[in-house]
Amino acid sequence: MSARKTISIDVSTCFGKNLIKTTEFSKAGKAALKVESRIKNEVDAGRLGFWKLPFEMRLSARLKPIVEAAEAARANRDTLVIVGIGGSSLGTRMMVNALKHRYYNELPGLERGGMKIYFLENSDPDSFKELTDRLDLSHTLFNIVSKSGSTVETAAQYALVRELLMRRLPDTWKKHLLFTTDPEEGSLRKMAEEEGIAALEVPSDVGGRFSMLSAVGLFPALCLGLNVKDLLSGAADMAGRCTSGGLFKNPALTLAVIHHMADTSFNKNMAVIFPYADKLQGWAEWFCQLWAESLGKALDEKGNPAGCGTTPIKALGAIDQHSQMQLYIEGPNDKLFVFVRNEKFNDPAKFPPRTKLPAAYDYLAGHSMSELIQAEEAASRFALTKTGRMSYEIRLPGISEYTLGQLLFLGEAMTAYAGYLYGVNPFDQPGVELGKKYAYGLMGRKGYESYAAEMKKTAAADAKFII
Amino acid sequence: MSARKTISIDVSTCFGKNLIKTTEFSKAGKAALKVESRIKNEVDAGRLGFWKLPFEMRLSARLKPIVEAAEAARANRDTLVIVGIGGSSLGTRMMVNALKHRYYNELPGLERGGMKIYFLENSDPDSFKELTDRLDLSHTLFNIVSKSGSTVETAAQYALVRELLMRRLPDTWKKHLLFTTDPEEGSLRKMAEEEGIAALEVPSDVGGRFSMLSAVGLFPALCLGLNVKDLLSGAADMAGRCTSGGLFKNPALTLAVIHHMADTSFNKNMAVIFPYADKLQGWAEWFCQLWAESLGKALDEKGNPAGCGTTPIKALGAIDQHSQMQLYIEGPNDKLFVFVRNEKFNDPAKFPPRTKLPAAYDYLAGHSMSELIQAEEAASRFALTKTGRMSYEIRLPGISEYTLGQLLFLGEAMTAYAGYLYGVNPFDQPGVELGKKYAYGLMGRKGYESYAAEMKKTAAADAKFII
Repeated sequence: MSARKTISIDVSTCFGKNLIKTTEFSKAGKAALKVESRIKNEVDAGRLGFWKLPFEMRLSARLKPIVEAAEAARANRDTLVIVGIGGSSLGTRMMVNALKHRYYNELPGLERGGMKIYFLENSDPDSFKELTDRLDLSHTLFNIVSKSGSTVETAAQYALVRELLMRRLPDTWKKHLLFTTDPEEGSLRKMAEEEGIAALEVPSDVGGRFSMLSAVGLFPALCLGLNVKDLLSGAADMAGRCTSGGLFKNPALTLAVIHHMADTSFNKNMAVIFPYADKLQGWAEWFCQLWAESLGKALDEKGNPAGCGTTPIKALGAIDQHSQMQLYIEGPNDKLFVFVRNEKFNDPAKFPPRTKLPAAYDYLAGHSMSELIQAEEAASRFALTKTGRMSYEIRLPGISEYTLGQLLFLGEAMTAYAGYLYGVNPFDQPGVELGKKYAYGLMGRKGYESYAAEMKKTAAADAKFII
Repeated sequence: MSARKTISIDVSTCFGKNLIKTTEFSKAGKAALKVESRIKNEVDAGRLGFWKLPFEMRLSARLKPIVEAAEAARANRDTLVIVGIGGSSLGTRMMVNALKHRYYNELPGLERGGMKIYFLENSDPDSFKELTDRLDLSHTLFNIVSKSGSTVETAAQYALVRELLMRRLPDTWKKHLLFTTDPEEGSLRKMAEEEGIAALEVPSDVGGRFSMLSAVGLFPALCLGLNVKDLLSGAADMAGRCTSGGLFKNPALTLAVIHHMADTSFNKNMAVIFPYADKLQGWAEWFCQLWAESLGKALDEKGNPAGCGTTPIKALGAIDQHSQMQLYIEGPNDKLFVFVRNEKFNDPAKFPPRTKLPAAYDYLAGHSMSELIQAEEAASRFALTKTGRMSYEIRLPGISEYTLGQLLFLGEAMTAYAGYLYGVNPFDQPGVELGKKYAYGLMGRKGYESYAAEMKKTAAADAKFII
């Protein structure tokens, strides 16, 4: 049964002349084993919130409220709008991209097999208007997703959505809202209780960017008719591979050590996430967010300067062969390449026989578009290896809930491992506070006056070079 | 008239302590003036193909065939499919994103004011099937875009599209095709002549990635009902600012020198392209392609090793504040930040008064979503400056054909300037050939057998570390 197939990873092209020496790797492996034990202990003690999700969310007590909310949504509404940003929307986008038709919202209802889905993410007024102006509110459910309840973009979207609903549907407006937020804390939870608005939970020990397998991702998945049990099984099976075995056995540990060495021993400050399948673009986007925010840290766990973090770059094969490959192959050797290969597309798209091809393109005869994109992936990786670049390849035996579950959990686990290898806390994000304070200052929020004043003063002194 | 407003650029935050010293900058300015003269001479002599486009394409002799083709398309078909990749599609995507409704294809015909538009870009069989299975072919025009006519992904899409049309519309299939290709050379031009298929031109002295203002972008723009005269005027006006004046006057030269210094004197090997508007995401994508492929070069113009090229990274504000900002502000100081600020959204999206806001979000009262995203942009830039990061800001007085024309030409001109500053040829892409040869080898194309054999041999020896 192809849906049960396991993803594999070929890391051979990380090793060789001018690349990692296997002896060096084994040496690094000793430090890595300590990190592996640490993760294992934390997992066994239940201290890693995100690691518990694939197991606990399959329990009916945990899944039931989400299933019920989704059933009610599907019975009463035909459109779902996810109001959230960053970790609150990228996981759902990843699923829609990977598992649904490319033109899903444009399909007739029966073909779609689930609710239409839209996103309100950015604090962009044009996007807000262009969506809300054409929604039939009486058939729409807004799922407001923010663990803290204080995310300013989501607050802003919600403020406008709430007013719109109250105005247009004064008697039933609350029934068009569902919050997904912390079980105890924060302003969304408080509003849910005070105003009687339905709410699902993001477990308190799971941070936003690791929350995909909680109600954050599972509720929309169910609204779209996806198989969340397979998604959770895939994640659980990958979790099982990622707590022991050391180098070359534990995939998350092995990849984390490769990324860490590529950075610290080979000065590769970028990781190009390079899937060769349109349906994996959302995964690349989601992973880049997870990696950057978890590992870009000024201080290590003890409070000493770290200043670490490689920059993840989302690419898409074969498209970026016509966009970035020139730089990748001839520019500075400052990147680690993460190829993702899809071994089985839904339809191979066979080319016509020679007699039905234009003469100039007759080399395509006997092949399929699926073979072409796979050949391009292998060829690009080979050409990069030949020019001394470091890469590895994740192989997916098709794209399904089960394989996506594996792939996403691999991303989470390797990020956690990499954090511990760098010695930083992969679960916080202290650096984003500063910008927020200045933004609140500019918006005239009480308590932030000094930030606005500082900006004003500096801006006046600095704005001298305007072309 | 707001549509006529000019974009400005604030580069103040490139200068200061630990950033560029104005004295160093003036020194660099001397070398820069030579490059400015070189560009000016090439422009005056008509040797820079892309620089002529905004001026020449406004001449009726050049524009007329494109207008006629678009009028015929709009009269006879309702759906346009762009079959092209890289420079052949990204410019059109940029326009749709910037100038059309976010859900354009989902709008009813009258509201849309133009043909529906889809893209066949990647050699991904699932995307191919998911689009073509639901097209009404009798109302569809396929615009096959490839300057050389030999782009393998486009050849593959065309092979399948052609067979599909011949099968379903045996008498009229040619009337559903329009090629955009070199005026003389290449297999698409040959096929157009031999089979009697309509074709538009990409001027021979304009490379694919610089071809946006030829028929490549103008034909689809007209099919969508966009104002191409404004687009061309915007580009022409920016071109006029970019041939003289030296540092702090010539925007393209000034930005090219900043990017070059950020790389060569400050070890910033990345440039984050960071617009704060959903409608500019396509511009970032398009620019990243242009920058990477033009400047990532192993050899300089004289054939000496260069190994240059900074890596462009597409970001989107405010979304990436929840995804990348943590890394940007606390991670290594290895990036130059290019903010793009939209000074005027189509609708500000005012927040409700305090009485109609939840108490926790009452700080939004009296403001608008437009103010919020602008405050976030200013705050992020300020926080990055405060932590020693280098940035500049491009300011758009609204998003229109005229301002987009300026912005895209600025991108092209600064890329050309940067190429000459690095001493490389910004108009070639020799590095992408190697991968193509291996891909042809794997596809069994005649003449490429040795490449396949080399891969097979190496792969067998190397595939030792699979997890």
